[in-house]
Amino acid sequence: MSETKLVVLGAAGRMGRTLVSVIQETEGARLHAALEHSGSPALGDDAGTLAGAGHLGVTITDDVNTALDGADGIIDFTVPVASTGFAALAAKRGLVHVIGTTGFSAEDEADIAAAAKSARIVKSGNMSLGVNLLAGLVEKAARALGPDAFDIEILEMHHRHKVDAPSGTALLLGEAAAKGRNVKLADNSVRVRDGHTGPREAGAIGFATLRGGSVVGDHSVILAGEGERIELSHLAADRAIFARGAVRGALWAKDQAPGLYSMRDVLGLAD
Amino acid sequence: MSETKLVVLGAAGRMGRTLVSVIQETEGARLHAALEHSGSPALGDDAGTLAGAGHLGVTITDDVNTALDGADGIIDFTVPVASTGFAALAAKRGLVHVIGTTGFSAEDEADIAAAAKSARIVKSGNMSLGVNLLAGLVEKAARALGPDAFDIEILEMHHRHKVDAPSGTALLLGEAAAKGRNVKLADNSVRVRDGHTGPREAGAIGFATLRGGSVVGDHSVILAGEGERIELSHLAADRAIFARGAVRGALWAKDQAPGLYSMRDVLGLAD
Amino acid sequence: MSETKLVVLGAAGRMGRTLVSVIQETEGARLHAALEHSGSPALGDDAGTLAGAGHLGVTITDDVNTALDGADGIIDFTVPVASTGFAALAAKRGLVHVIGTTGFSAEDEADIAAAAKSARIVKSGNMSLGVNLLAGLVEKAARALGPDAFDIEILEMHHRHKVDAPSGTALLLGEAAAKGRNVKLADNSVRVRDGHTGPREAGAIGFATLRGGSVVGDHSVILAGEGERIELSHLAADRAIFARGAVRGALWAKDQAPGLYSMRDVLGLAD
Amino acid sequence: MSETKLVVLGAAGRMGRTLVSVIQETEGARLHAALEHSGSPALGDDAGTLAGAGHLGVTITDDVNTALDGADGIIDFTVPVASTGFAALAAKRGLVHVIGTTGFSAEDEADIAAAAKSARIVKSGNMSLGVNLLAGLVEKAARALGPDAFDIEILEMHHRHKVDAPSGTALLLGEAAAKGRNVKLADNSVRVRDGHTGPREAGAIGFATLRGGSVVGDHSVILAGEGERIELSHLAADRAIFARGAVRGALWAKDQAPGLYSMRDVLGLAD
Repeated sequence: MSETKLVVLGAAGRMGRTLVSVIQETEGARLHAALEHSGSPALGDDAGTLAGAGHLGVTITDDVNTALDGADGIIDFTVPVASTGFAALAAKRGLVHVIGTTGFSAEDEADIAAAAKSARIVKSGNMSLGVNLLAGLVEKAARALGPDAFDIEILEMHHRHKVDAPSGTALLLGEAAAKGRNVKLADNSVRVRDGHTGPREAGAIGFATLRGGSVVGDHSVILAGEGERIELSHLAADRAIFARGAVRGALWAKDQAPGLYSMRDVLGLAD
Repeated sequence: MSETKLVVLGAAGRMGRTLVSVIQETEGARLHAALEHSGSPALGDDAGTLAGAGHLGVTITDDVNTALDGADGIIDFTVPVASTGFAALAAKRGLVHVIGTTGFSAEDEADIAAAAKSARIVKSGNMSLGVNLLAGLVEKAARALGPDAFDIEILEMHHRHKVDAPSGTALLLGEAAAKGRNVKLADNSVRVRDGHTGPREAGAIGFATLRGGSVVGDHSVILAGEGERIELSHLAADRAIFARGAVRGALWAKDQAPGLYSMRDVLGLAD
Repeated sequence: MSETKLVVLGAAGRMGRTLVSVIQETEGARLHAALEHSGSPALGDDAGTLAGAGHLGVTITDDVNTALDGADGIIDFTVPVASTGFAALAAKRGLVHVIGTTGFSAEDEADIAAAAKSARIVKSGNMSLGVNLLAGLVEKAARALGPDAFDIEILEMHHRHKVDAPSGTALLLGEAAAKGRNVKLADNSVRVRDGHTGPREAGAIGFATLRGGSVVGDHSVILAGEGERIELSHLAADRAIFARGAVRGALWAKDQAPGLYSMRDVLGLAD
Repeated sequence: MSETKLVVLGAAGRMGRTLVSVIQETEGARLHAALEHSGSPALGDDAGTLAGAGHLGVTITDDVNTALDGADGIIDFTVPVASTGFAALAAKRGLVHVIGTTGFSAEDEADIAAAAKSARIVKSGNMSLGVNLLAGLVEKAARALGPDAFDIEILEMHHRHKVDAPSGTALLLGEAAAKGRNVKLADNSVRVRDGHTGPREAGAIGFATLRGGSVVGDHSVILAGEGERIELSHLAADRAIFARGAVRGALWAKDQAPGLYSMRDVLGLAD
């Protein structure tokens, strides 16, 4: 099997360096080029050395066209304006484009959808294999176990520095549960319990938040019925899981028809 | 909606009494008749009173034909010889037959399959909604996350009186994991670790057993990868969950075509 | 060893019947008498039969003096006015008096303390062995691991019918943590997190609440530091744990000098 | 408060570099000198730069006497022959000596005990604060909850590369449980369960092992009784916890009288 040749955007940043390391460790993947914006102090450095992955002979460059020549795909955790531009380039060249960027406008989304007629785009707000798998399982479980018999609760724990609650991933899991029940999360979520709450309402989706230490991110979805409980959990130990998911997405997409895919497609979980 | 009229077999036994209570508590279900074998000291007693569910006006009887007249379904946690006989009766009358009995021979299984041409049969070695849901999710997770990147471990805890290990449910979950990976559990299971074990082999499905106190039955399937872990768990607090699953199976089956179904079908999880 | 002869108050009520069953199962304990208030419809019934523990030959009575003659101790989950009266009787006779009643006034507390000069009184707002042990361990852990390095979070889950949050036991555990740190819980507790919360404050004791299904009561205290976490949990499966703790308290107190004891003394955990 | 000036042995090794980083992050601690053996290629390098902690102006040296001049303490995760030598030097100078080295002979132990007449020595087979705290709590819990009513089980999970089972820490926790019960672990441990095991024996201490992914090390001690369970767990996310415990031990020991201490003393948990 030939290797999948990947171009990393923002290769000198924290996520870019993690991507370079993960590509280096992944069988079937190879670092083809490492891009940074013009003026970056890292231009000319070896991308592997910078990532702590050993010398790779791939110099960080700002020459996009040369970087894309001969490449199979692009991995992109950058900003919307860059990502829409690279989607257009990927379309022109028929490349894989894995997009972990967030914060797109509706117009951006339309541009990406248009590019996906020719490019193989994998786009997800959370690139972790485990979280995407969990969301798929939660949707199925919520559909199978009705709201009269089973109550859904979502628990998350993150480190002491996190400034908002619940986490974006907890909300993503709540959306999956609501979708499984064919309801809207906003109409059913209970985000605070304190003092006299009254009994739990059937159909509610409850959230609870823990904060402490250096916890990278733990999430549990509990489906509690009479006499039994299902708990579906994801425990992240390491932020590199987002890079690993992106690289796996790129390898998967190389063999697909052009289109706009999610990590659920990569996992074979989409309906 | 009209109520589903159910006949409980072995209505004076422990599971029979639990079934009577659960039917009484379940909207849409009604106890139609309560059977015991000829010579049972409970014949003539009120099935509800015996179950601690209050007087129901349903007398325990050994008259099978009268019991089945006007019934929609039979719930049966008995013995193979009785279950195959009732399957034939269910076929003749086009009834629902929920079979929680275990220990069938190949010949028995053939008889049941034949009966299922006319009867609506739901048959499962474990009638708990939660365990069957968990098995379905484990199969999907094992398929989505390959053996090179994710290791599968199965943990169970039961009360101090349990005399074998791992539990039947742990093995059922192991089979689900193996099926998801398209391998045989027998070729891949690791059931003991002690002393110098060497590193874990890729593709192994490990088991670990805890025993203590009065724990009804907890099971967890762990899929552990680089930097992240998925944990899928079922916690049973109460043996009535098997009766609840059986009653739900009966309500579901009433609206199906004749056939042989599993609890995975009841949950809408079968492929 | 001679058996400890125990009198159960409110023997026809839910907790009274559980106490009768637990005494019957406990080696070294014997049901000596079973009291109910005058006018109870249960007067004259056999206490064992009523409890589902088999005929014990102990008739439910309202004759207090006869009941206490020859007894070693009283177990009392009733109301303050009854408990203070029985404390005085226990003092006069030098008996053990286990008090699981709650809601005492300051005057009641003074009366009980006075009675404890002659009676052996064990009094606790929560009679479970496990919860009292956990509270003791939490206090020690909070003292050992300072607030700069370790964050304390308290999580509880109860059934869908519970109408307040956090649970009394969660607050009891919070008090234990605060005592270990030599601070007041009220000055440090964080009971709600939603939206933009900012980073966690050092020294905070956070609470999170889950509700669902039929969960009897799970509590976890988490001490989360840089790179490691301690989790101390209690899982209740059965409300009889309060009766078991009370009976164990009575057996323990029989061999103590008169005084006012807590369940922490019974467990050998008091400082 | 003046800073505690610490000398790191083996400062270019993996643990040594972690110690340098942790000292740098710890208020009240300062890197005084960084030692390596003669001939190390790291001699002359800046210890902070090597550790990824930024330039600290402390050059790695093999000159022991100069390194110890003006120091308050030594942190030592090396080999027995080096550790006994440094214990003698610490005694001569009245220094703190934190010893994380393992594998001492009885003679080595005697040498260290002799040195502890003048040095302040903190020595432990596992320097993690959390694991040592957990061991102390387990001992107390095992003492409070007797073997007739509560069953003890120890569960551990580690990464796929670990070659032995159960882990040393699981055994250390088993020893703590056995000590709490005043029995020998060797006479009571159950390390394997498979097939027909018969019911659990009262007093047994059971072990179960999970292996998978990149798990740094999770340990749980479960005390399971009738209707309730206590779970006491430690989750390690990061191998730096051993360095953090050692630095905390050094800061604590500076204010103690000469003597031989354990991490349990540092935590204020020793009886």
